[in-house]
Amino acid sequence: MPPNRDCEEQSASPSVSTAAVRPVAPTRFVLIEPSHAGNVGAVARALKVMGFDDWALVRPRWPDVLQRPEALERASGAVDVLQRARIVDSLEEALHGISHLCATAMTARDFGPPTAAPRPYLEALAPRAHEGTSGGVAFLFGSERYGMANEDVWRCHVCLRIPTAPAYGSLNLAAAVQLIAYEWRLALGGFDTAADDAAPKRAPRDPPADAPALSGLLAHWREALQTIGFLDPAAPKKLIPRLRRLLLRAQPTASEVHILRGVARAVIDAAQGRKR
Amino acid sequence: MPPNRDCEEQSASPSVSTAAVRPVAPTRFVLIEPSHAGNVGAVARALKVMGFDDWALVRPRWPDVLQRPEALERASGAVDVLQRARIVDSLEEALHGISHLCATAMTARDFGPPTAAPRPYLEALAPRAHEGTSGGVAFLFGSERYGMANEDVWRCHVCLRIPTAPAYGSLNLAAAVQLIAYEWRLALGGFDTAADDAAPKRAPRDPPADAPALSGLLAHWREALQTIGFLDPAAPKKLIPRLRRLLLRAQPTASEVHILRGVARAVIDAAQGRKR
Repeated sequence: MPPNRDCEEQSASPSVSTAAVRPVAPTRFVLIEPSHAGNVGAVARALKVMGFDDWALVRPRWPDVLQRPEALERASGAVDVLQRARIVDSLEEALHGISHLCATAMTARDFGPPTAAPRPYLEALAPRAHEGTSGGVAFLFGSERYGMANEDVWRCHVCLRIPTAPAYGSLNLAAAVQLIAYEWRLALGGFDTAADDAAPKRAPRDPPADAPALSGLLAHWREALQTIGFLDPAAPKKLIPRLRRLLLRAQPTASEVHILRGVARAVIDAAQGRKR
Repeated sequence: MPPNRDCEEQSASPSVSTAAVRPVAPTRFVLIEPSHAGNVGAVARALKVMGFDDWALVRPRWPDVLQRPEALERASGAVDVLQRARIVDSLEEALHGISHLCATAMTARDFGPPTAAPRPYLEALAPRAHEGTSGGVAFLFGSERYGMANEDVWRCHVCLRIPTAPAYGSLNLAAAVQLIAYEWRLALGGFDTAADDAAPKRAPRDPPADAPALSGLLAHWREALQTIGFLDPAAPKKLIPRLRRLLLRAQPTASEVHILRGVARAVIDAAQGRKR
């Protein structure tokens, strides 16, 4: 069974389709002047696991960043998405077809757009993306060292601020992309309307045993506990009520009741065998 | 103005307090057999930005992982949290004081706990953490290469499955930790202290027993069931996993574990008395 993560050292897997899972307004991720090739590779992987593959790098520090070993290694099985990155000279070139711009930054700026937490903002934006009324949506990320320039923030519709600890808000670039991509994907409805909906899913299990079955189980155990001298019928204390409360929380199935009665029977047999 | 992210190459900033922002049940992150020192450093940073600092490494591939250059570099300003990692030889040692275990894995397993998406599950768990009725909460992450072992998943209350693209679900380890830490922090109310007032208050009940206490209870009952001939060690079938699943649902308190161990001891005594 495949683990949820795999080794960063593994060789790249063959290209697979990473087209967006459902038709919505295009989504683009834009890294402005990224300085670490490893981060660029990690961003490719972060996008691919969330089903995005449209992205651009504005003036990366390394012009050959898509071929650098650190990028390839951290991209792992997302080398195909890594190679799809467009490298451009200006933010303007990265924004063709994009109507709605989301900056990511720590703090609000004078004259800047409103600051919002990603979750409520993206949940409100997603219906417009589905309708096509938002136009293309881009998420902009500044350089590792300096964040976003004021003039880049000023042209955005919103400044998304990921909640972080007051004492330390220094998110890694790929981690920030991972969180935004995840929030946007969930806001768009996730990957599988049947499998990703809210309710936790259990492997189908038997229904809980009914009340008479639980009474029968408790009676059987009362007998077993008396047989081994653990329960004194003259001074039962709260033992049986406490066991009942535990069983009510556990909600055993009929087959689990069957097992527990089998244990009670075996206990009685073992104790009575001794007396014979 | 500080950018939201900073350079991974920068020297570590001086230690700052990373105590959890509000008093809740303890939260611990556990990495089982992590193989990449860089990932371990990135996890320290992912935890610190979300205000967590209690974590453990079970049998890391590099015993000196906390001192390795890749770990220090990727930890960036979170070297203090990196150094706080406890390195232990077994998962058991990592779980003292922990009652609620969340596995992270791609797929459900036979006899495994229910699978859930992180957001709804953690939003439902958080009020219990605030009340103190959940006991300590741990999030378990398997190795980069192999994910989690079945027997480690089996002892968990839930298997959290982060939504990922159908064609590529290979989250990097630190990215997975980042997403879970973020979801859990938001479920706990984020960093806004005003949200403290929103936490529901109820009469406290005894917290559930911790994971080592449940392991001890199951081991004691295994011995008892073998003594009375109900469990054949040569053909144990699924009896112990089924009892474990029942116990995970019941979430017994420490005093209930005490009672159930008392029953196991009385069963063994009764059976051995017979043989004398």
